[in-house]
Amino acid sequence: MTAPSLPPICLLTDFGLDDVYVGVMKAVILGIAGPFVPLVDLTHRIPPQDVRAAMVRLAAAAPYFPPGTVHLAVVDPGVGSTRRPIVVASGGQLFVGPDNGLFTPFLQEPGARAWLLADPAFRLPRVSRTFHGRDIFAPAAAWLARGVAPERFGPEVLEPTVLTVADVRREGDALHGRVVLVDVFGNLITDIAEEHVRGLGADRRAVRVRCGPRQVRGLVASYAEVADGDLLALVGSTGHVEIALNGGSAAAELGVGVGARVVVEGSPAEEG
Amino acid sequence: MTAPSLPPICLLTDFGLDDVYVGVMKAVILGIAGPFVPLVDLTHRIPPQDVRAAMVRLAAAAPYFPPGTVHLAVVDPGVGSTRRPIVVASGGQLFVGPDNGLFTPFLQEPGARAWLLADPAFRLPRVSRTFHGRDIFAPAAAWLARGVAPERFGPEVLEPTVLTVADVRREGDALHGRVVLVDVFGNLITDIAEEHVRGLGADRRAVRVRCGPRQVRGLVASYAEVADGDLLALVGSTGHVEIALNGGSAAAELGVGVGARVVVEGSPAEEG
Amino acid sequence: MTAPSLPPICLLTDFGLDDVYVGVMKAVILGIAGPFVPLVDLTHRIPPQDVRAAMVRLAAAAPYFPPGTVHLAVVDPGVGSTRRPIVVASGGQLFVGPDNGLFTPFLQEPGARAWLLADPAFRLPRVSRTFHGRDIFAPAAAWLARGVAPERFGPEVLEPTVLTVADVRREGDALHGRVVLVDVFGNLITDIAEEHVRGLGADRRAVRVRCGPRQVRGLVASYAEVADGDLLALVGSTGHVEIALNGGSAAAELGVGVGARVVVEGSPAEEG
Repeated sequence: MTAPSLPPICLLTDFGLDDVYVGVMKAVILGIAGPFVPLVDLTHRIPPQDVRAAMVRLAAAAPYFPPGTVHLAVVDPGVGSTRRPIVVASGGQLFVGPDNGLFTPFLQEPGARAWLLADPAFRLPRVSRTFHGRDIFAPAAAWLARGVAPERFGPEVLEPTVLTVADVRREGDALHGRVVLVDVFGNLITDIAEEHVRGLGADRRAVRVRCGPRQVRGLVASYAEVADGDLLALVGSTGHVEIALNGGSAAAELGVGVGARVVVEGSPAEEG
Repeated sequence: MTAPSLPPICLLTDFGLDDVYVGVMKAVILGIAGPFVPLVDLTHRIPPQDVRAAMVRLAAAAPYFPPGTVHLAVVDPGVGSTRRPIVVASGGQLFVGPDNGLFTPFLQEPGARAWLLADPAFRLPRVSRTFHGRDIFAPAAAWLARGVAPERFGPEVLEPTVLTVADVRREGDALHGRVVLVDVFGNLITDIAEEHVRGLGADRRAVRVRCGPRQVRGLVASYAEVADGDLLALVGSTGHVEIALNGGSAAAELGVGVGARVVVEGSPAEEG
Repeated sequence: MTAPSLPPICLLTDFGLDDVYVGVMKAVILGIAGPFVPLVDLTHRIPPQDVRAAMVRLAAAAPYFPPGTVHLAVVDPGVGSTRRPIVVASGGQLFVGPDNGLFTPFLQEPGARAWLLADPAFRLPRVSRTFHGRDIFAPAAAWLARGVAPERFGPEVLEPTVLTVADVRREGDALHGRVVLVDVFGNLITDIAEEHVRGLGADRRAVRVRCGPRQVRGLVASYAEVADGDLLALVGSTGHVEIALNGGSAAAELGVGVGARVVVEGSPAEEG
């Protein structure tokens, strides 16, 4: 046979890897889309029901996926309730999952649209109340990868759920933001973007970054610029200010986590 | 070249994800079956050597895989001993692994047959005593995916090993079963099937489900029917009675695990 | 379309599975190499920045992969520093990653060569200082899988970094080695190879293997030869002497780990 060239399906859940849930969703996908659909696991270890953590990770990762990628994201505290199953088309990619704010950054892109996953033809024959990942979302992702247009699934959703994305606030020469993600190395990723810092107009070597009980002088270009065991701040691979500890965990060193306040100051001051 | 359309190979082991064992089995498979064979991980985090836990999970997942799927399941306390390596054909799918009861539910299907994996042509050239997953089972799965018939591997195994599957017992208006699986969310999955409950002939809203120190009134249709932090019972996505805690772990709340007794009673009584 | 038959890309990192790093590297690979490239995870749970642990695992696994396999290995304490990104051609396979000794065993093979990953045409357009896995190594692996010759990436690296591989020492009738890996079951894998033992010329049933506070008499052929809960020594699936506990963890029983001394003695003596 001639192998069809299908877009990847990228999976993100809070199901973990101990159970068979993720494997069963892939089984359903292969049964519908056939053996040539590429499957990529983004992560299945989102903290249980933490929609915001899932949103941040998906937003960081999606831009690296090829056009046409179908993102299947299931972090769903409201399974079985009245929250709606949706597909979002945004930036040339598709996003399948619950309408609970998980797709906020993509919904805020110009031209983004969402539809209800309503047509039973694109679900498993029997839909359970407790595993929509298998019964509604995985089949939808597979049909989308096969080329079914998202508007064929159901009516357009005109007011999809969005979460408030914390805004970075500027006061004089200072940017006020927060830690939005602690990665596996204990690096603290903030919501303060490179553009914010540029807007400050300050010398990058002279800014001070404060978080928890400590402050760091200057934004360095790489870890190798500071001694082992030293704190540093830099614009990381996500394009945002990060606080890291060379050879260790900044989260453990500072005793802070997601939500901690971070201040980037442009004017000279005494070192803490 | 024209890409062959191969059935998926689905892997389940107790090897974990720290080591390279699973990757090496996949390497062997790709070397034999070529680059177009779809590989799906069911889970590699079965508790070490827990054949029964593997059996329950595989039985729950297999029905969602496409016809022709080759399940490669290696949970094998007796590696290097005299337990036999087998392939089981059941329900249009194939199951490769040790003859230790792992495939009990599939062997009990009508028409199921099993064969010994005896022919050295379908093993790696050198078979170790300690890693049959790599040397015997992965090559067998790959050759089966390529279309080699299971009866070509060796003589039929007429009395394959089966494990006793706990039976649900009915006494008057009560069903007596057990917890057979605790999933990653702490939900308690029992061996009491929807058919058992239907046989009771009672109003689903009036049944009482007892487990450990607590009882729950009624089988609900979804988590959303109870308040956050409340216990509930429902027929879950596996078709069996489950006890869950909305927004938490029922296993932790009740202090029970696999093997705990569960009673479903159909007649009215005082609430505990 | 006609599907191209691409070699597998095999991934090994210390990124873990909580974050999206591995998924993003796969996204980059699929964007360059297309949907038909087979991706195999070796492990992503190398202890953070433990180059030696990664080296041992990759060396044990690579021989089982098909010719042409591209190994993408990123365990990189020096990211952003002056360590060089390289590709190594050795034994008919390719190895992409940092020049920090990770590829030592492959560099020591006859005919092995290494090149710098210098040409920006084979990197992402924007290279961060902190995520070379995404920006340099994943694109290189994808282009290599597509057939770009390794010498097109940059100048040859004539003195790539190698780590000292601990040598097994023979004194009289005794072999002195070390534990180089503790696997997920607590088995202690040593650097004493089957050839070393053969060179001893002793009866395998009479040798004594000492490690920590205990000694084991004889090299058995499989776990089933000793009672449950007993220590044993055998030549394991990697071709090296291993110390194991039937039904348990030898590492826990002996209280030892990587680096512990191991002695294999060929002459008879009192049992300890």
